[in-house]
Amino acid sequence: MSLVVQKFGGTSVGSLERIQNVARRVKKTREAGHSVIVVVSAMSGETDRLIGLGKSIAESRRPRARELDVLVASGEQVSAALLAIALNDMGVPARSMLGFQAKIRTDEAHTKARIKSIDGEALRKAAEDEVIVVAGFQGADERGNITTLGRGGSDTSAVAVAAAVKADVCEIYTDVDGVYTTDPNVVPTARKIDRISYEEMLELASLGAKVLQIRSVGLGMKYGIPIHVRSSFSDAEGTVVTREDELLESVVVAGVAADKKTVKVTMRHLKDRPGVVAKVFGALAEANVVVDMIIQNVSLEGHTDLTFTVSSEDADRARDIANALAAELEVADVILDDDVVKVSIVGVGMRNHAGIAARMFQLLADEGINIEAISTSEIKTSCLIRAKYAELAVRVLHEGFIG
Amino acid sequence: MSLVVQKFGGTSVGSLERIQNVARRVKKTREAGHSVIVVVSAMSGETDRLIGLGKSIAESRRPRARELDVLVASGEQVSAALLAIALNDMGVPARSMLGFQAKIRTDEAHTKARIKSIDGEALRKAAEDEVIVVAGFQGADERGNITTLGRGGSDTSAVAVAAAVKADVCEIYTDVDGVYTTDPNVVPTARKIDRISYEEMLELASLGAKVLQIRSVGLGMKYGIPIHVRSSFSDAEGTVVTREDELLESVVVAGVAADKKTVKVTMRHLKDRPGVVAKVFGALAEANVVVDMIIQNVSLEGHTDLTFTVSSEDADRARDIANALAAELEVADVILDDDVVKVSIVGVGMRNHAGIAARMFQLLADEGINIEAISTSEIKTSCLIRAKYAELAVRVLHEGFIG
Repeated sequence: MSLVVQKFGGTSVGSLERIQNVARRVKKTREAGHSVIVVVSAMSGETDRLIGLGKSIAESRRPRARELDVLVASGEQVSAALLAIALNDMGVPARSMLGFQAKIRTDEAHTKARIKSIDGEALRKAAEDEVIVVAGFQGADERGNITTLGRGGSDTSAVAVAAAVKADVCEIYTDVDGVYTTDPNVVPTARKIDRISYEEMLELASLGAKVLQIRSVGLGMKYGIPIHVRSSFSDAEGTVVTREDELLESVVVAGVAADKKTVKVTMRHLKDRPGVVAKVFGALAEANVVVDMIIQNVSLEGHTDLTFTVSSEDADRARDIANALAAELEVADVILDDDVVKVSIVGVGMRNHAGIAARMFQLLADEGINIEAISTSEIKTSCLIRAKYAELAVRVLHEGFIG
Repeated sequence: MSLVVQKFGGTSVGSLERIQNVARRVKKTREAGHSVIVVVSAMSGETDRLIGLGKSIAESRRPRARELDVLVASGEQVSAALLAIALNDMGVPARSMLGFQAKIRTDEAHTKARIKSIDGEALRKAAEDEVIVVAGFQGADERGNITTLGRGGSDTSAVAVAAAVKADVCEIYTDVDGVYTTDPNVVPTARKIDRISYEEMLELASLGAKVLQIRSVGLGMKYGIPIHVRSSFSDAEGTVVTREDELLESVVVAGVAADKKTVKVTMRHLKDRPGVVAKVFGALAEANVVVDMIIQNVSLEGHTDLTFTVSSEDADRARDIANALAAELEVADVILDDDVVKVSIVGVGMRNHAGIAARMFQLLADEGINIEAISTSEIKTSCLIRAKYAELAVRVLHEGFIG
């Protein structure tokens, strides 16, 4: 007998019929002799509807965050209660717990709170007698104010609950059947990954983004909770995200991803003297702009071009910061280029295999794809290329490394 | 400066525009220098919608009460949050408080809980700085389970909160402008009552039922909180329910009411011996059936007919109990008659005026209306008559006593 946390997203609880399906699945797990804690999202569309109401009633369109949280938290309250009703009606003792009842203590950052603690002992004990249905996405701060964890927060709730109760596994039910080696819409031969390490999953964020909030992966890694991403519409096994040493064999390249949400920023004709680069990246860091790739050209007559990439959400802020420094650093021009894409290969096996990066460059070169920037980590190599080559690059890399 | 509790019902918060109207009204009260605690119902139709969902998802159509409360409580949560958002957006600092946050402690009777205590001191203090918007109709039991007070419970929430914080007045905003001397649809000359005592209001329950949950009147009486029933769509004064000694003058008859929800039960040919009547009414009391009027005919050859009235909701239970006793008490027949109506005149001034009852009987007799049963209290006289005479009786009594 084990303790399982099962998380069902908005689509999985999107109608009364689907909630009943979820109840049947939970019942089956319970009947197999396991204790179950369920974490639910709001019914699909409900969170958007509630946020819409909150914005509509404020003429400023900026509802007070504390109250927006109270409003939005009602969405998961409804789905948790409905699932608990369905379970009880099927003869499975179940009780709902809202964030404050499950003692999911968060900080006070309304609409994007972070979990500080959960009373795992009480939850674990409660789950011995009944299925506990926890309203995802929500918690309460020290004073009892209702908080929400921000978009996709139900995955984080689920993994945090799993960590607190020391669950054997955290199952994330969603509308796809797992994580793929690359986007199947681009590469028809893409395969479902059976097992993948936390580190790889983090690096493949863009592949997993549709099935799993990446924030929850870090949490799973920290507490060693296996995360099983699987379909709520079938019984097939999905993808288990787990510790590297739990993988049967470490493949060299686990997945190929393309990130289109990347923007190249170039500061042209920058004065090349000590401390200049530190000043630029210091200012960016201070503004919470995460810089990904950096290229600095050879200095020519005391000036150089500095190029870096940021995510598209941060692009405007990065440009403002670059422009603010332009006069002082004698920058001729700040240029934004969003017609680029970052393709990456990821795999823990890369650590033990030399020449993987070189082979990647060769595969791209063979197709005449120019590489504009490169970044590497122990388990990932990324190349910045023109956006129009995105699909082509993914295809040749998938074929070259995965098959 | 005073402390005012304002309660807004489902119709008053039935749309975003109406919630903004409520916010403007609250703002005005606040700007007049008063502290305000608002109690809100769910948006009209929402409670029914949620109960419908809860019943639909349970194939038994009997959702677990604990979970139904969690589900339904989300309705007031939404309206409380929306009103708090609207207020803040208008520059009026406001915060919502759900039942558990306002420390509205109830017993554990889900879907019909009773309030045991409220932390009035904390609420009063909180209301000094901000408008407090309390979600009506809900509370939490000792273990933190969410409970609801049953239908119309928001009025009870409001008066209970007003009592706990020692408010100067509890204003109940609704879609009519007060309590009338009788139903204006029956008697066009019916007048709005400016002030009425708690006792009279309790006796006139059927007149006030559309504007005020009668359960809250008893609470107001117990704690001496004036209840001001008024329209949320106008600024006109409504009806103040208050202590008798606060009335300017005690009228003889404050109102005339007709109660159609009454059923006459007759046990025919009952064995007439000591203890029989006690046995009947003892059994009824044990089953929580409230008996209103009682008539016992003269005994004939050791047998009699026993007639009593009960509310129509209790009629079936009353018949079952009467039938269960039939053999033992040699009852020939149990007859239910719902073609009756109880007309009542109510007024604290009746205490000091002789002959009011006699005049009532005469007014009815003048119209040829037969009186089938009579019950009296210090401030009320009621007659049971054929249902078809209901409107006629109300008209002649209103004209005879009120004008």
